[in-house]
Amino acid sequence: MAHALRLAEHGLYTTQPNPRVGCVIAHGDEVVGTGFHRRAGEPHAEVFALREAGERARGATAYVTLEPCAHHGRTPPCADVLVAAGVGRVVIAAEDPFPQVNGHGIGKLRAAGIAVERGLMREAARELNCGFFSRIERGRPFVRVKLAMSLDGRTALASGESKWITGAAARADVQRWRARSSAILSGSGTVLADDPQLTVRLPDDKEFLLPLRVVLDRQLRTPAGSHVLDGSAPTLLLHGAAASCNDDRFARVERVALAMHGDLLDLRAVLALLAGRGCNEVHVEAGPTLCGALFAAGLVDELLLYVAPLLLGDSARPLLRLPPLGEMARCWQLRMVDQRMLGADWRLQLRPA
Amino acid sequence: MAHALRLAEHGLYTTQPNPRVGCVIAHGDEVVGTGFHRRAGEPHAEVFALREAGERARGATAYVTLEPCAHHGRTPPCADVLVAAGVGRVVIAAEDPFPQVNGHGIGKLRAAGIAVERGLMREAARELNCGFFSRIERGRPFVRVKLAMSLDGRTALASGESKWITGAAARADVQRWRARSSAILSGSGTVLADDPQLTVRLPDDKEFLLPLRVVLDRQLRTPAGSHVLDGSAPTLLLHGAAASCNDDRFARVERVALAMHGDLLDLRAVLALLAGRGCNEVHVEAGPTLCGALFAAGLVDELLLYVAPLLLGDSARPLLRLPPLGEMARCWQLRMVDQRMLGADWRLQLRPA
Repeated sequence: MAHALRLAEHGLYTTQPNPRVGCVIAHGDEVVGTGFHRRAGEPHAEVFALREAGERARGATAYVTLEPCAHHGRTPPCADVLVAAGVGRVVIAAEDPFPQVNGHGIGKLRAAGIAVERGLMREAARELNCGFFSRIERGRPFVRVKLAMSLDGRTALASGESKWITGAAARADVQRWRARSSAILSGSGTVLADDPQLTVRLPDDKEFLLPLRVVLDRQLRTPAGSHVLDGSAPTLLLHGAAASCNDDRFARVERVALAMHGDLLDLRAVLALLAGRGCNEVHVEAGPTLCGALFAAGLVDELLLYVAPLLLGDSARPLLRLPPLGEMARCWQLRMVDQRMLGADWRLQLRPA
Repeated sequence: MAHALRLAEHGLYTTQPNPRVGCVIAHGDEVVGTGFHRRAGEPHAEVFALREAGERARGATAYVTLEPCAHHGRTPPCADVLVAAGVGRVVIAAEDPFPQVNGHGIGKLRAAGIAVERGLMREAARELNCGFFSRIERGRPFVRVKLAMSLDGRTALASGESKWITGAAARADVQRWRARSSAILSGSGTVLADDPQLTVRLPDDKEFLLPLRVVLDRQLRTPAGSHVLDGSAPTLLLHGAAASCNDDRFARVERVALAMHGDLLDLRAVLALLAGRGCNEVHVEAGPTLCGALFAAGLVDELLLYVAPLLLGDSARPLLRLPPLGEMARCWQLRMVDQRMLGADWRLQLRPA
């Protein structure tokens, strides 16, 4: 199963909106077929593994990181294919919560007399598809907020200057997190201040899907000529219903009006909309107001924090704007998932405690 | 030499103002004597090791972490003792910059026909006595600033509430850093806000010297009844020449007037005074103003930063008050010396880059 999970990771940048899935077919210690899902519309992991195994699949054990599908989508049901190939046993890491699968894949296999075990390395399999599980089970994407700061928690000088707080290794790392995401979310404040591209720059040999660029722009302030309006990636501009525009700034992007929640766009509505469009992981690169609002609303699933070994002082810009706390007991508690050095910087991966 | 350095560490909490020194006497791989310096006025490391070795010291190699002393202090010169014991070779990690030793110890040994080598693990030996070397070579103590903060760089709520940002393991760790210091430095703002004890709490079996409590109190604002005035540890109150007091608040502490530098006491004068009193390592536990002033003046040798996995938001108190930066290139650059987890918190040890 560990082998199957490593195979599944090959689809990290390309399977969206589908989950990343790997499959290994074996007789005891002898592996006779391996496969992974690369891209929506193309065959699933099981199909590649069975093709490689051929006749040797008969009586073998199939290790699959996700419950085989039971429905006719763009490809035939993998449960049927496994039955037809005559495998003797199927070991599944995680059950598929997708309504048309959810237990039906396992049911089909068992109905055909195949022994099914489940739960082996389930947590790792769910982790690999944290966005897919979040979207199907909670109706919203997995939200990862990326921030880069000085040791004293500052993201930029008072002047706004922030290029570059962190070093080259940290910046290259950010591109990989963008690449695995279905959408990159930002706010018009960041667009106005930094004019980011919000695209993915990876070495040429890396295949990836262009994430949807999503800009929250309540008042349609994004100026003509901004990178996010250049049509170089699919782009969605979300604005308040009251905002209007009578020029052609937005010719190359899609615009959708959303409800407001106080002074900001309704963030739950934003996430529901993105889930409806098949977004699994949403990567947030925004300023202290939007990031703070996501934290305050309890909508952040992961904080990816890059810390540079320097001090900027108290006149520099804060990491997050959060409502004032009356007592320490009400602070936002997180727990460490991973920490590592990237060049001279430090990367922390944290989740709500 | 690694063995000798480990021995020297036994004096971590007790040798001040003397350096921590260890000694191993060996014939090849066979260790015949070991010793370390425990406390000023008591015998040096070499004496203990030679006592243990007895006659077997003759022709042996002595590994010493610091150049043997050459002068009559409270104990006779170790160089003479090594000569008298008939050791054949002395290997020294670091030269002693103390004026009455500085090369004279080595000279005495060589004059007696003993082979002397030096520089083996010199960096580790100097590190172990960073305060001693700083005091002798630079005329000021090694300054270690301890701060505890949230992930977003905040030390307390706007209300001042800060108990406890970090957990029990981090707080116990702080006691060990206090214990190895010659002085604990704070400011009257911290005394007024938190009424700290600035003493050392260690498990009962740990021997340590009480560090000098030093409070910078320009205007003599420290109120009667403050813990730092209770006489439970030697305490030095530094104030501006213009400040005066006609009550008996300060009966149990020593008061010294110092020159001002702008709005603050002259920090270089503070450190020079502490060096003159034999302070090797000074441990700073103070607020953002004093800590920021030390950074801004380039007087911080190490930042010991405890980071708790929680967020407090931008209304909470900043880590350091520093003069505003006009450009990023002028920020305070640090480098990581050590990082580790302490319970749910992280401890970062950083030094100027």
